[in-house]
Amino acid sequence: MATKPQPAAARKKQVRARASSPLPALLYTDTGTSADQLYFSRGVQVHDPFIAFEAAGKRCTVQSALEFGRVKKSRCFDEVLPLEEWVERAWKAFPGRAIPPGPAEIIATLAKAKRLSGFRVSSEFPAGLFVKLRELGLQIDIAEGPLFPEREIKTPKEAAAIREGNRLSSVGFSVVEDILRRAKIRGQQLIFENQPLSSERLQLAIRAAILNEGGRADDVIAAGGDQACDPHECGHGPLRAHELIIVDIFPRVMKTGYWGDMTRTYLKGRASEAQRRLVATVAEAQRAGIATVRAGVDGAQVHQRVLDTFAAAGYETRRSAKGSVGFFHGTGHGVGLAVHEAPRVNTQPYTLKQGSVITVEPGLYYPGLGGCRIEDVVQVGARGAKLLSSHPYDWEIR
Amino acid sequence: MATKPQPAAARKKQVRARASSPLPALLYTDTGTSADQLYFSRGVQVHDPFIAFEAAGKRCTVQSALEFGRVKKSRCFDEVLPLEEWVERAWKAFPGRAIPPGPAEIIATLAKAKRLSGFRVSSEFPAGLFVKLRELGLQIDIAEGPLFPEREIKTPKEAAAIREGNRLSSVGFSVVEDILRRAKIRGQQLIFENQPLSSERLQLAIRAAILNEGGRADDVIAAGGDQACDPHECGHGPLRAHELIIVDIFPRVMKTGYWGDMTRTYLKGRASEAQRRLVATVAEAQRAGIATVRAGVDGAQVHQRVLDTFAAAGYETRRSAKGSVGFFHGTGHGVGLAVHEAPRVNTQPYTLKQGSVITVEPGLYYPGLGGCRIEDVVQVGARGAKLLSSHPYDWEIR
Repeated sequence: MATKPQPAAARKKQVRARASSPLPALLYTDTGTSADQLYFSRGVQVHDPFIAFEAAGKRCTVQSALEFGRVKKSRCFDEVLPLEEWVERAWKAFPGRAIPPGPAEIIATLAKAKRLSGFRVSSEFPAGLFVKLRELGLQIDIAEGPLFPEREIKTPKEAAAIREGNRLSSVGFSVVEDILRRAKIRGQQLIFENQPLSSERLQLAIRAAILNEGGRADDVIAAGGDQACDPHECGHGPLRAHELIIVDIFPRVMKTGYWGDMTRTYLKGRASEAQRRLVATVAEAQRAGIATVRAGVDGAQVHQRVLDTFAAAGYETRRSAKGSVGFFHGTGHGVGLAVHEAPRVNTQPYTLKQGSVITVEPGLYYPGLGGCRIEDVVQVGARGAKLLSSHPYDWEIR
Repeated sequence: MATKPQPAAARKKQVRARASSPLPALLYTDTGTSADQLYFSRGVQVHDPFIAFEAAGKRCTVQSALEFGRVKKSRCFDEVLPLEEWVERAWKAFPGRAIPPGPAEIIATLAKAKRLSGFRVSSEFPAGLFVKLRELGLQIDIAEGPLFPEREIKTPKEAAAIREGNRLSSVGFSVVEDILRRAKIRGQQLIFENQPLSSERLQLAIRAAILNEGGRADDVIAAGGDQACDPHECGHGPLRAHELIIVDIFPRVMKTGYWGDMTRTYLKGRASEAQRRLVATVAEAQRAGIATVRAGVDGAQVHQRVLDTFAAAGYETRRSAKGSVGFFHGTGHGVGLAVHEAPRVNTQPYTLKQGSVITVEPGLYYPGLGGCRIEDVVQVGARGAKLLSSHPYDWEIR
């Protein structure tokens, strides 16, 4: 249904023009913590904070002897500078100091050598370093919005990496379905391999299967009954028959760092009419939401479509300090090198851009009845949404 | 050998007195990224950034409906405030704004309600929020050094959690030893289950075993030959017989968030005399380093002891822009809720404190000959080091 995204080069130029500061980008963080750093580093992973910056259109980094060879070999940067050499140069540039030069002095020394008057940094940039760099006379602009706005628009290669993340989610669902099929019902209990089936057992089976396929699923939600009504409760203890079980799997592809993010809701046993209506309504809201997604459409409209579907079916949302019921989270969020990134699809107006990748994940939560959430990932196209996730929606397992 | 650490209460008081600002702490990050946030949150894990702060000696947090119930139930905070309510209050406190209040306005509103004039933040605090809070008239002091200096000193409970992390490392080594024992040598090749044995195969087996025991080992080093001479190269492709293989396993205990960190070096086949001397020298350096560890000793002295051992055995260190050989990393680092934290044990003077937990991990790296690193974790005691890791050092597997 979706048309091809624009070529990456044209798109980048267009987005660059919107960056909030004309200064070159500067980062000081690691690639595990910071999706921006991993994006800028073109995929080479370094697990301690390091300096990376733009200079004359080139992407440069400073690496210690511990990382230098590996980063250099990866060819992910245009220039790799040896940290030890720049520490020496910073000592000389800032003589008379008792303590060795830190990142601030090294960056100031680099800026002078590269004839840069300052940098543009992310709002997440460390405040301590920000203050020191300003004290050293550098102009440091904090980006309004994302440091790399172009990260929101996914190239076909990035979309494929996210699709791979979702394939890993699907691997997890298959494992869950297999276990639920094999589980026996004894009263309200679920028995699997002669033991009560627990959330932890499902989580472990999902993690192991995904690990085997090249992913990490550090956090997995497999929560049943009222536990599932807290959308970020991972689930713990025995799962029960005839109760809704929300399974939310957001794995990271180890090789690329891109994420998948999908949710299915299951029930082992016999669903009540109320449970069936709940699940059918969430499924309907999801289809309605996805049908609304298109480049140029306001994300708030997609969210409103979900709200309308729930309202039409008579499902109320009530918020209170002690907890909320109904539908009380956003309809979706961007996915890429971070599992939650721009854009957010909720009540806030935000025009969806062609090439953005977002989740569509309505849910309904009523303690006593249970919770249901269904989540897929789509890429925003000129004429509609293109699914980047795929897994059946069968949920009642007898 | 080590004496008991001081009672936790007395220690905290002592350390608190050294904090760089008398203002209460403020954090805005998530517990996955920030060890400080996980420490302050007493273990409850929240995967999106959230506000947490001290007020009148109480630990407070603001949580959205998505997390409120779960965080409240955990009883990890003295006070859990509902985000939605404070967004409303911030709207009223800052009228006439077109966009909804963000963390800065919410924090300013909270500060006013709690009669706080400002906060102490970590140097890692987001620069964007730092600037906005100052613009809103709050005093924001950036901590000199760690936000919670007491994090460096581990309670007996924390030491036990780190010991559990190291137990997971040991589980990984046992898997490696089993695979190497069962692997067959064919020329220079290693064959396991009818396939060439690769770094990736070892990494996967380690990860799966650790997952099964309640840990995460997202990154595992299993690197052979010259690859192992880049200390942060994870290793890829076939492993060879008669070559040194460095296996560095730093798992995180999922339940507590504490890390283990251990390294062993192996060889499948027959070691040369040069390889044996290399491994014996690294083992000797490690024993010498550990023997030097004691509360009140300068960490640089521990490092120097390792350097001296290598020098006495004739192993030279040469650094160059193209890569270094010999021993070119620190002797150790703190381990806790972060895998690398204070203190660092290297050339920088730093007095070791009773209760600190550090790695001792000398290594020697010579392309052509190979690399060897041996790493254990110790807690600093008044009279010496107490090992928090345990695994045999047998390395030649025929």
